Amino acid sequence: MFTRRLVIAVLLAVGAGGSALAQSDPLPSWNDGPVKKSITDFVARVTAQDGVDFVPPAERTATFDNDGTLWCEQPVYFQAAFALDRVKALAPQHPEWKTRQPFKALLENDMAALSASGEKGLLEIVAAAHAGITTDEFRKVVTGWFANARHPRFRRPYDQLVYLPMLELLGYLRANGFKTFIVSGGGVEFMRVFAESAYGIPPEQVVGSSGAVRFQMGANGKPELLKLPKIEFIDDGLGKPAGISRFIGRRPIFAFGNSDGDLQMLQWTVAGPGPRFAGIIHHTDAGREYAYDRQSKVGKLDKALDAATASKWTIVDMKRDWKIIFPTEK
Amino acid sequence: MFTRRLVIAVLLAVGAGGSALAQSDPLPSWNDGPVKKSITDFVARVTAQDGVDFVPPAERTATFDNDGTLWCEQPVYFQAAFALDRVKALAPQHPEWKTRQPFKALLENDMAALSASGEKGLLEIVAAAHAGITTDEFRKVVTGWFANARHPRFRRPYDQLVYLPMLELLGYLRANGFKTFIVSGGGVEFMRVFAESAYGIPPEQVVGSSGAVRFQMGANGKPELLKLPKIEFIDDGLGKPAGISRFIGRRPIFAFGNSDGDLQMLQWTVAGPGPRFAGIIHHTDAGREYAYDRQSKVGKLDKALDAATASKWTIVDMKRDWKIIFPTEK
Repeated sequence: MFTRRLVIAVLLAVGAGGSALAQSDPLPSWNDGPVKKSITDFVARVTAQDGVDFVPPAERTATFDNDGTLWCEQPVYFQAAFALDRVKALAPQHPEWKTRQPFKALLENDMAALSASGEKGLLEIVAAAHAGITTDEFRKVVTGWFANARHPRFRRPYDQLVYLPMLELLGYLRANGFKTFIVSGGGVEFMRVFAESAYGIPPEQVVGSSGAVRFQMGANGKPELLKLPKIEFIDDGLGKPAGISRFIGRRPIFAFGNSDGDLQMLQWTVAGPGPRFAGIIHHTDAGREYAYDRQSKVGKLDKALDAATASKWTIVDMKRDWKIIFPTEK
Repeated sequence: MFTRRLVIAVLLAVGAGGSALAQSDPLPSWNDGPVKKSITDFVARVTAQDGVDFVPPAERTATFDNDGTLWCEQPVYFQAAFALDRVKALAPQHPEWKTRQPFKALLENDMAALSASGEKGLLEIVAAAHAGITTDEFRKVVTGWFANARHPRFRRPYDQLVYLPMLELLGYLRANGFKTFIVSGGGVEFMRVFAESAYGIPPEQVVGSSGAVRFQMGANGKPELLKLPKIEFIDDGLGKPAGISRFIGRRPIFAFGNSDGDLQMLQWTVAGPGPRFAGIIHHTDAGREYAYDRQSKVGKLDKALDAATASKWTIVDMKRDWKIIFPTEK
C-alpha cells in the first residue's frame, strides 16, 4: 500500500528524533502549545529512570481508538463504506435482493428506506458484507477494496486518510518503549488488513469487534475458518475496557479517543495507579477535514467532551494543534 | 515468584547460546536425536536469510498449548485445583453450600456425588470460583493461591512445575525472532498471573478461555470490571483456530500441543503455505512425571496422536527426549 513507504519514512524520522538527535522535534506535525507539551511531558515523566513516575517498559501500554482518532471517519465510517460497496458487488449473485429490504433500498440508493430499516437492517447488510466467506478470502476482498475504493471528498484511497500527527505520536511512543494497540469498535479482521502497513501496529495488537467463525475442512481438504453472520463481541463503549481486559490483559497508562464510544476506555485508563494520560481528538477543522461533536451521527462527542473538560484530559483541537493532517499534504 | 529468577537464568543462557556462542547447545535439556534435530533444523531453515524457506520475523508466530505442554496437568488441571481450593475457602461465606450440590459433594470430598453432578456441576464450581469479584481482586486471589498451594505429588508450588525443555524452546525461538504465544483452554486471566514470570510471555500474548466481565463504577467511585458467572469463549479444540484468528490474527508457523484439544490448532498451523512445524508432547514418563495418552481423562491424546503419526509431526517422547523435566532438578 502507498502508506507503507510513507509510514516508514515518518517512523525513521521519528526514530532519529527520539534517540540520536534529542533536540529535534519528535512531533513535527503538532503545533507547539500546551497540548503537545502535555504529551511530551508525560512521556518524559514515565521514562525518566530515576523519577518518581518511572514506568517500566513492560507496563507502557498505549491504546488508540481508530475511527476519528487515527484516521478519518466521515462522511461515514470507512468500514460502512466497505460494507455498502461489498453488498453492491455481491448483488448480481443475489437477485432476491432486488425485492428484499434493506438490500432493495441500498441498491436503489433509497436512503429514507435504508434508514427506516434501522439497526436490524444495518446488521443484515454488515452480515451480508462480512460473512459467508473464509477469513483468508475476506482479507483478499478487503485488500482489493482498499486498492480501488476512493473517499468521496478527498478522492484518495481510504488508507491514505490517516492522521500524520497520530502516526508521529505512535512512532514517538514506540521509540520510548511503549507498546501501541488499537482498541476500536471496528471489525478486528477488517482493521488488521491495513493496521500494520498504515500504523506499524501488528495484527495481534489490534482489538476490535468480531464475528463468530467456524473451523471446518474446506473443499480442498484443508482446514479453513468460515465467517458466520453472527456478531460475537462489540468493542465499543462499555465493551472497550472489557476488550482491553480480554485481549491485552493489562491496563493502559496512555489512551486516545475521539467520541463517546471511547469514554469508558479513557475512564478505565486514568483510574489505575501512577501517571496516566487520556486524550481526546476534537474535530474542529471543517476546512481541512471535518468539524463535528455533540450532534454528529458518526463519532458523536458529547459526554466524553464533558468528562475530558471536567477531568482536565488533553483535548486536541485539530484546527489549532495540528500543523498537517494527512501525510499527502507534506 | 520463585520461577522468575530461574527463567531469567535460563533465558540468559539460551540467549548466549543463540548468538554469541553459536556452537553451544540452545536446548541443553533435550537429548540429541531426531526430535531435537527436527526443531533446530526448522528454525535454521526459516531464519536462513538466503534460503528458499526464509520467513520474515513478523511472520514467525509460535503458539503453545499450556496444560501438559508447558507445565504439568496431572492429577488434575491446575486451574481445577485452584477452583476447588477457592470454593472451599469461600464456603464459610456460603452456608447454603452445605446442603446444595455440587458444593456439598465438594466440601465433603464426595467424589462420586461430584462426578454425578456432571459438566453442569463443574461449571457451577468454576463460576463460583471465578466470578463475583473484580478482575483486580481475581489477580490477587490467584497470586495468593500460587504462593500457598502445593502440588499433591511433587509438594511444590504449581508454577514450579513448568517443563525446563520447553522454557529453553521458548527462549530459543524468541532469540531467533519468533513471537511466542500461549493458546490454551485454560482461563486467560488465570494464566496471565503467572505466564510472564514463568514463561516470559506477556499478558497480551496469552490466548485462552474467558468469562464475561461487566464495566461498572465501584463503591470507591472508580471504574472496575466485575467477573460474571458466564462463559464467553472456550479456547479448546475447534475453538483454538478461532481464538488464534480473533486474538492473534496471523496463522502460526510453529505450534506445540499435547492432547486432542490441540488437534485443530496443529492442523490449522500446518495447512498454511511455506515451512510449518507441528509438535506433540507425549507423556511417557511415569517415574519423573506421568504416563498417559488415549485413556486419560485429563489431557487425552488419541486422535491427535494418530494425526501426528500419519502426518509425521514431531512427537516428543518425554522419557526418551527430555534429559531434565522440571527446573528444580537442575
